[in-house]
Amino acid sequence: MNYFSSDFKLGILGGGQLGKMLLNDTRKFDIYTCVLDASNEAPCKIASNEFHLGDLMDYDAVYNFGKQVDVLTIEIENVNVDALETLEKEGIKVYPSSKTLRTIQNKAKQKLFYVDHDLPTADFLRFAYLSEIEDTINNGGLKFPFVWKAAQFGYDGNGVKVVRQLSDLDHLPKGECIAETLVPFKNELAVIVVRNASGEIKTFPVVEMEFHPEANQVEYVICPARIDDKVAQKAIDIALKTSKAFNHVGLLAVEMFQTADDKILINEVAPRPHNSGHQSIEASYTSQFEQHIRAILDLPLGRTDSKVGGVMVNLVGAEGHTGNVIYENIEHIMNMDGVTPHIYGKKQTRPFRKMGHVTIVNEDLNEARRIAEAVKKSIKVISE
Amino acid sequence: MNYFSSDFKLGILGGGQLGKMLLNDTRKFDIYTCVLDASNEAPCKIASNEFHLGDLMDYDAVYNFGKQVDVLTIEIENVNVDALETLEKEGIKVYPSSKTLRTIQNKAKQKLFYVDHDLPTADFLRFAYLSEIEDTINNGGLKFPFVWKAAQFGYDGNGVKVVRQLSDLDHLPKGECIAETLVPFKNELAVIVVRNASGEIKTFPVVEMEFHPEANQVEYVICPARIDDKVAQKAIDIALKTSKAFNHVGLLAVEMFQTADDKILINEVAPRPHNSGHQSIEASYTSQFEQHIRAILDLPLGRTDSKVGGVMVNLVGAEGHTGNVIYENIEHIMNMDGVTPHIYGKKQTRPFRKMGHVTIVNEDLNEARRIAEAVKKSIKVISE
Repeated sequence: MNYFSSDFKLGILGGGQLGKMLLNDTRKFDIYTCVLDASNEAPCKIASNEFHLGDLMDYDAVYNFGKQVDVLTIEIENVNVDALETLEKEGIKVYPSSKTLRTIQNKAKQKLFYVDHDLPTADFLRFAYLSEIEDTINNGGLKFPFVWKAAQFGYDGNGVKVVRQLSDLDHLPKGECIAETLVPFKNELAVIVVRNASGEIKTFPVVEMEFHPEANQVEYVICPARIDDKVAQKAIDIALKTSKAFNHVGLLAVEMFQTADDKILINEVAPRPHNSGHQSIEASYTSQFEQHIRAILDLPLGRTDSKVGGVMVNLVGAEGHTGNVIYENIEHIMNMDGVTPHIYGKKQTRPFRKMGHVTIVNEDLNEARRIAEAVKKSIKVISE
Repeated sequence: MNYFSSDFKLGILGGGQLGKMLLNDTRKFDIYTCVLDASNEAPCKIASNEFHLGDLMDYDAVYNFGKQVDVLTIEIENVNVDALETLEKEGIKVYPSSKTLRTIQNKAKQKLFYVDHDLPTADFLRFAYLSEIEDTINNGGLKFPFVWKAAQFGYDGNGVKVVRQLSDLDHLPKGECIAETLVPFKNELAVIVVRNASGEIKTFPVVEMEFHPEANQVEYVICPARIDDKVAQKAIDIALKTSKAFNHVGLLAVEMFQTADDKILINEVAPRPHNSGHQSIEASYTSQFEQHIRAILDLPLGRTDSKVGGVMVNLVGAEGHTGNVIYENIEHIMNMDGVTPHIYGKKQTRPFRKMGHVTIVNEDLNEARRIAEAVKKSIKVISE
């Protein structure tokens, strides 16, 4: 099939910032792209060839949209998987597959998948209802501290909580969940694996993630991670094994813990472009977004190594600010060395909402990290 | 003024490939952008916030469009300058200025500007009509060979011809023109200068251009140029002096000849993003397109140095092919090391039409040049 002709249509479920960044590369290749999103103000409303309004969790909306395209991908996991399964049966190429999405959408299923495929992950218990956790604690089957995770629809730190005492369980959603051993870790690492439909597979360098303590959102991503080569290779091998276990097509971001004794444990995966790969736009030979398009269109993959060191800083809404967004001091950070802001185009800010990110590139990674600190201190995402 | 809010509107005259590449960066910064172009199939029709249909040479079309924006720029020189002059008087920021465009639109005026500002350029004679050239030859005032150039509306090698005998003048446009000394040169070089409204000024590295013998279009751009540092510095100094002479805001691409005896002579300038800077998207810390936006919005300029070596190959329509375009072997070149195709999205190809370009980046510039050769030999822009 000739992707570079308007006979071909690529569909993206979700019109947020990840879709917006994918569109830069579909535009570069002039690949006809249709986007489905529920919001008329979605960042993908422009730059897509066709923008369709619809609820991503609605069977008919997803099915009817998918029937119009040749290849269908996602920029967010929370989509109607039954519709994807029907579309696959009817010959639409869906990447990631409905099977993979079903496994990943449910954190309990996802954890069981790792166990089944001999992939290292923290020990856990699965519960159909929150109330079962309390019983298990009372029966001595579970000790504090542990990490509670909602099985479904967690996003950007929602649906995750460290539980140190019974009262920490108050006000948590009542539904299906897991209790995971709290792992003492040195580093949070991530490896993005890219695999195309023909099975060509590559990995981006291991990155180091620094998280915001409260929001549990990535604050800095550092590429490459400043870790021992042996540990890096271990992380890469596990990420490759994970992508192959899913028989995955497209990007798979594998988030991992480096434990105190240098074990690598898989935390969770994302079957799409990921926050831990944003710096690839400026730092890598091929951005994660271009790689995802190459992979799902079964084109040859590009180089995944880096031209220079890269650090990514998320721009999230400041606490106490809700309303029309202002990027305070953005002109000041643009005066810093190797700094590129990416503004997602959301008109309304609220605390911890992802509004954009800033990439800092430099021949010297430590210098990039220093500048990233200055960027972080300077720019503020506030409301009018 | 807060450029990063929808109260601000940037206007671009022209919706072709340069505009399309500018839009990648206005999208990145979420800057509200309006485009005016005469074609409903212009590459900028999508990715702009507003697309307006209109003739760029029509006073009313340009004036009425310009009145709706805060800052107005161009991606092509052939626009109605009277309208720009009125807009400037009415307080719209127009970059490049109407004065600069008037000078550049007319090659005779442009050459006189160099003379007036003590900028080196090849000797020339100015003629109101083609017929005057013949008289001058007969009177011994002009010797073969020389270069005929139409004073106005030349583009991509149209309006330029080497004249070796009288018959070469047949079928040339009858209007205003110049006859320029044919300069024996070693290299064609270019330097892109970027200057913002506050006067901050930077140059990109000197690049080397290899031209297609027939079409007189750039075939390869090599960054940095493989020339002596002293010659490079001379070219940079002349480019800087030229930008300052125009009191220019935005990008100014200065095309130059390196003569047999290492003199630098200005050939011509373009007051906008330029073909000689396309490789900056992948090779430079800041692309020429982002720099143009930073400059005309009076933002701080980014780094202009390179992350890696870059070579650019133009994708022009193959001879003997007119109609719906096909990019033959594009998947094959995407399998080569460090290769990124840019497809402009023009549906119809014709001989020598600029349909896209390919960037090849590599730590080793000579390796990039070798791969560029392979790309050039492999990909063909043909019709169905």
